Amino acid sequence: MEVISPENLLKSLQWRYATKAFDSEQQIPESIWSSLEDSLILTPSSFGLQPWHFFVITNPEIKAELLPHSWNQAQVTECSHFVVLAAQKNVGDVEISQLMDHTSTLRKVETATLDGYRKMMSGFMAQMNPEELLNWAKLQTYIALGQLMTSASVLGVDACPMEGFVSAEYDRILGLEEKGLSASVACALGYRSTADKYAELPKVRYEKSELISRL
Amino acid sequence: MEVISPENLLKSLQWRYATKAFDSEQQIPESIWSSLEDSLILTPSSFGLQPWHFFVITNPEIKAELLPHSWNQAQVTECSHFVVLAAQKNVGDVEISQLMDHTSTLRKVETATLDGYRKMMSGFMAQMNPEELLNWAKLQTYIALGQLMTSASVLGVDACPMEGFVSAEYDRILGLEEKGLSASVACALGYRSTADKYAELPKVRYEKSELISRL
Repeated sequence: MEVISPENLLKSLQWRYATKAFDSEQQIPESIWSSLEDSLILTPSSFGLQPWHFFVITNPEIKAELLPHSWNQAQVTECSHFVVLAAQKNVGDVEISQLMDHTSTLRKVETATLDGYRKMMSGFMAQMNPEELLNWAKLQTYIALGQLMTSASVLGVDACPMEGFVSAEYDRILGLEEKGLSASVACALGYRSTADKYAELPKVRYEKSELISRL
Repeated sequence: MEVISPENLLKSLQWRYATKAFDSEQQIPESIWSSLEDSLILTPSSFGLQPWHFFVITNPEIKAELLPHSWNQAQVTECSHFVVLAAQKNVGDVEISQLMDHTSTLRKVETATLDGYRKMMSGFMAQMNPEELLNWAKLQTYIALGQLMTSASVLGVDACPMEGFVSAEYDRILGLEEKGLSASVACALGYRSTADKYAELPKVRYEKSELISRL
């Protein structure tokens, strides 16, 4: 099964760039947007635990509230869909049991048959203190960020990843604290403005020979 | 530019799974592999700093050496290409200057015009202690992991992400310490074995309504 050629994949990955100016008149159509949400849901995660929640913000008032806590980057308000990827804090036995129950239902197996899997996860989590657990969950959200941006690029949707925001303020505005979540990273999506001069600049990447070693 | 339909993208993302058994007879052809390396290189990173190095391992002896430090997961030796994504430790002014020089060359601008950009990065990095810097660099490698896995799936290449390895042993075997790198995460790539029963199991994901909030 090859649904895209290597050439077309690279054309898309070359086409994408961290969009600085979005065309605020252009919204992502629902059929495309919905598949980008699916790409988030389908993201692989450590043990399949999915320690995340994704906030998709199109409401102009909420975008405006986030803006001053986002280094005033205009992408927040000008993009079509602004996504905040939140990480679960303190993933532990409750979340592991939830995953086991869900796996048991979907795969039609007794939860008892999953005990080895459960114990392995439990042991892995038990090694980590709350800070390490949050770091681990944040790492998973970055896989989702990668899958989201790559998916967007092959669909011809523009994106700008954003780390530059005040996490505690995002948590407050989105009510994340009480949900046991923490804002990890964000991504603005939509369509580039024709006025964005960054679109035309050469991409700055180091040479393959500097970044890849074949052994 | 839309090089893939939302339906085909989702078909690919549904098709992929964390491959447990690879067909060790099947190698990824060089033309496909080379584009996967390009997808790694083209991965977006915070400030464009690319704080990473990717080790692509096909040598059976090195794979065998990594195996016991990888929870003995057979994917390490049976896959076609085993990638170790390493994070740079202590990214600081040296790496920032290197990026500024490279940007100046590629975009044909004086480095002085990039001073605002340089200062912003320097300020951001200065807030972090060495452990936080490594965590930040590791986060970036997970974007690369996401882009790699999504790219593989749309090309019809199987993959299995792997966190379950002893980082210090990988560092020792690959000589990462002296390069200022640390093994962050790994990914086995190749083609699934027809005997892998996991390929047929329903994918375990929570409902969209549980993982996504539209605001």
